[in-house]
Amino acid sequence: MKRRLLLVSNSTLHGSGYLDHCQENISHFFGRDVKRVLFVPYALHDRDAYTKTARDKFNSLGYEVDGIHEAPDPVAAVRKAEGIFIGGGNTFRLLKSLYDNKVLTEIRKRVLEDGVPYMGSSAGTNVATVSINTTNDMPIVCPPCFSALSLVPFNINPHFLDPDPHSRHMGESREQRITQYHEEPDTPSVLALREGSLLLVEGNKATLLGTTRARLFTRGKPTVDYDPGSDLSFLLTH
Amino acid sequence: MKRRLLLVSNSTLHGSGYLDHCQENISHFFGRDVKRVLFVPYALHDRDAYTKTARDKFNSLGYEVDGIHEAPDPVAAVRKAEGIFIGGGNTFRLLKSLYDNKVLTEIRKRVLEDGVPYMGSSAGTNVATVSINTTNDMPIVCPPCFSALSLVPFNINPHFLDPDPHSRHMGESREQRITQYHEEPDTPSVLALREGSLLLVEGNKATLLGTTRARLFTRGKPTVDYDPGSDLSFLLTH
Ligand SMILES: [Ca+2]
Ligand SMILES: [Ca+2]
Repeated sequence: MKRRLLLVSNSTLHGSGYLDHCQENISHFFGRDVKRVLFVPYALHDRDAYTKTARDKFNSLGYEVDGIHEAPDPVAAVRKAEGIFIGGGNTFRLLKSLYDNKVLTEIRKRVLEDGVPYMGSSAGTNVATVSINTTNDMPIVCPPCFSALSLVPFNINPHFLDPDPHSRHMGESREQRITQYHEEPDTPSVLALREGSLLLVEGNKATLLGTTRARLFTRGKPTVDYDPGSDLSFLLTH
Repeated sequence: MKRRLLLVSNSTLHGSGYLDHCQENISHFFGRDVKRVLFVPYALHDRDAYTKTARDKFNSLGYEVDGIHEAPDPVAAVRKAEGIFIGGGNTFRLLKSLYDNKVLTEIRKRVLEDGVPYMGSSAGTNVATVSINTTNDMPIVCPPCFSALSLVPFNINPHFLDPDPHSRHMGESREQRITQYHEEPDTPSVLALREGSLLLVEGNKATLLGTTRARLFTRGKPTVDYDPGSDLSFLLTH
């Protein structure tokens, strides 16, 4: 399988600029062969402004950026893409737009069959997985279903947050929410990426990158924390 | 319209027991005429344990409790209910179960036409509104759609949280999430109930109760905070 994925927990790390914290990973990932990256801004309302933000950053790293919404035919834009980046925002809005524009099948085909490198951040990482069941976002619109690109056979929870021991808030902790997901039958593992974490997938090899640990939730098993650098390839074999 | 609703932000307030903070409101609301309350535990996985928790609390206030899942026919249970209480948990799981058990129409009819008092807490408050678009919960299962009981013509965000100025977390604030909802066309107002808040609706009169202020988000307008005791009846006329 030619699959190459860079799945980032968060676009912006506290105290730094947009994608600053993972810019070396991005340069490494897209490399010298990719000249233009197709950006998918569907997760935010103002697609032009969002594309400008992504374009400025990617230009500074030596890549041209095309906004998928600027193309007359989004499917054709995916068909000729050298690299794809789906940015964060609202995951429900993003997934609905991917369905509305009928690009899910084509993105999946390009990534899994043609080896087009795929980068996702936050919501763009959620939609790379089997489903958006473990997004943190508010369900502001209703996509036809929660099934997503299935570029990997598990779920990711981006922006993972450890419980705050000083909080007086009584809403569910992130851990409780993921545990509730696993009360449902046949639910896949959830890789919880704290801010600062990213997952690199190359073929059948998966490696945790970044500066923070990731927590793996597996149905019916205790959670396990993994350090940056860990080989998580076993997650790809389910 | 006979409608009587008690819509609670949160079941448990930090430092007190289950429904303690609003127990006087509950006694007032169901009064002396109601002897038995039909409890809907669909939002949590362990329905028996959840019903026991609700039953213990309601018994202490002088009410008998029937769990809807204990009835052979849930629609028939709704048809003969004197009062209804839908508890919190996961809003997606709750709404899906309400659809799966085909009780939405009957609950709506009993409340709006027969004047059966309806109490909701957290997820049970979300489903009382037009839709679950402003829940905070993780979408662990997919209901047929996000439309809910529509006992009121607006949305509620329970467990509303003001932004934490010391947070280094980069996920969206609650205010940002609701603002994203209002970027979508024709979205109704969102009444954000901080923990400790509750809304009492009697016919066409709505009153904010509890100990914390509520924030109203209206599409295209600045937000407004309301103190406990405020008359919010204008929200019912849209
Ligand atoms: Ca988001
Ligand atoms: Ca909840």
